[in-house]
Amino acid sequence: MTDFSRLLELRRSVRDYQDKPVPTDLVRELIGQATLAPSSGNGQPWKFIIIGDRGLIKRLSDESKKNIVSDMDKNPDHPSRRYEAALTNKDFNVFFNAPCLMIIAGPSTLYSTRVDCALFAAYFMLAAADRGLGSCWVNLGSHIRDEGLKREIGLPDDHMIVAPIIVGWPKTIPSAPERRQPQILKIIEG
Amino acid sequence: MTDFSRLLELRRSVRDYQDKPVPTDLVRELIGQATLAPSSGNGQPWKFIIIGDRGLIKRLSDESKKNIVSDMDKNPDHPSRRYEAALTNKDFNVFFNAPCLMIIAGPSTLYSTRVDCALFAAYFMLAAADRGLGSCWVNLGSHIRDEGLKREIGLPDDHMIVAPIIVGWPKTIPSAPERRQPQILKIIEG
Repeated sequence: MTDFSRLLELRRSVRDYQDKPVPTDLVRELIGQATLAPSSGNGQPWKFIIIGDRGLIKRLSDESKKNIVSDMDKNPDHPSRRYEAALTNKDFNVFFNAPCLMIIAGPSTLYSTRVDCALFAAYFMLAAADRGLGSCWVNLGSHIRDEGLKREIGLPDDHMIVAPIIVGWPKTIPSAPERRQPQILKIIEG
Repeated sequence: MTDFSRLLELRRSVRDYQDKPVPTDLVRELIGQATLAPSSGNGQPWKFIIIGDRGLIKRLSDESKKNIVSDMDKNPDHPSRRYEAALTNKDFNVFFNAPCLMIIAGPSTLYSTRVDCALFAAYFMLAAADRGLGSCWVNLGSHIRDEGLKREIGLPDDHMIVAPIIVGWPKTIPSAPERRQPQILKIIEG
């Protein structure tokens, strides 16, 4: 029990990484471990893209920022509004200085894709923490619409990006932001 | 590393439980552990309902089955079509013989509710396995629409059920259904 509790504490959203590449084979190993995640009807709809090219990672960041800003222009209540200053700063990379980006994608029309890929993501990020790696699900980096860029990263037309996860060796492991007391709506005993 | 790998193997979708209640305090403890899950902007939109009353669990099963069957009548491509025989069998309880049902719910209009609650669910099910408990996310049990029943379980009008998770002491731990080789769409090295 203690070990798992400690792992939960160790898994933090890391945004500051050492300048040291993550071996692709290690990322593949983590992906292999995380396939033990449950999925709706054991459908395992998750697929993966592993990117270690920092130039490409920056271009994906620029593309995603551009699309979110354009969405915000049309919708005053856009959920990313609070990140507006960062998103309109051309030097801001949504993927920070991460040496590796692992994208989880799945079929756009499957009703369970987002939830199945989120279960996978939880397993993957814990598996990464278990090896001393930091990670962070960067939703601001998921808005890739340019057809050329989609082809470049191998994303099929009928697939959607669910979880762009940055991975790397942490410079420091941040402490956990405060958690609220769990809100239990009702307990109905037997 | 070994311990976490073993835990991933131990966490199976369990559908056959011992006739032994799960202490509510233990479920609360697991919920507390799982609040370390990440969520979009650390929003922690998850809320919980804990039910140990088998009669109520059966009524929730009946309500959910009824609504899925009615949805299937309107939609020939309904994703639950393959469960039609079970869903139209009045003796079938979608929650099996579980002594406890823990429901994760969140605000219906929040864009990240489903994904945030799925991340929580992954943590919760691993935390349960870490204590020797079995669990299973039963999506077939999430279609609760009757207003009286919603009030009875304390589900606010503007909230949706994301993950109904059964919990209990397993009779046996099933072996893992086969996983496919991970489908890596592309690797782009640095």
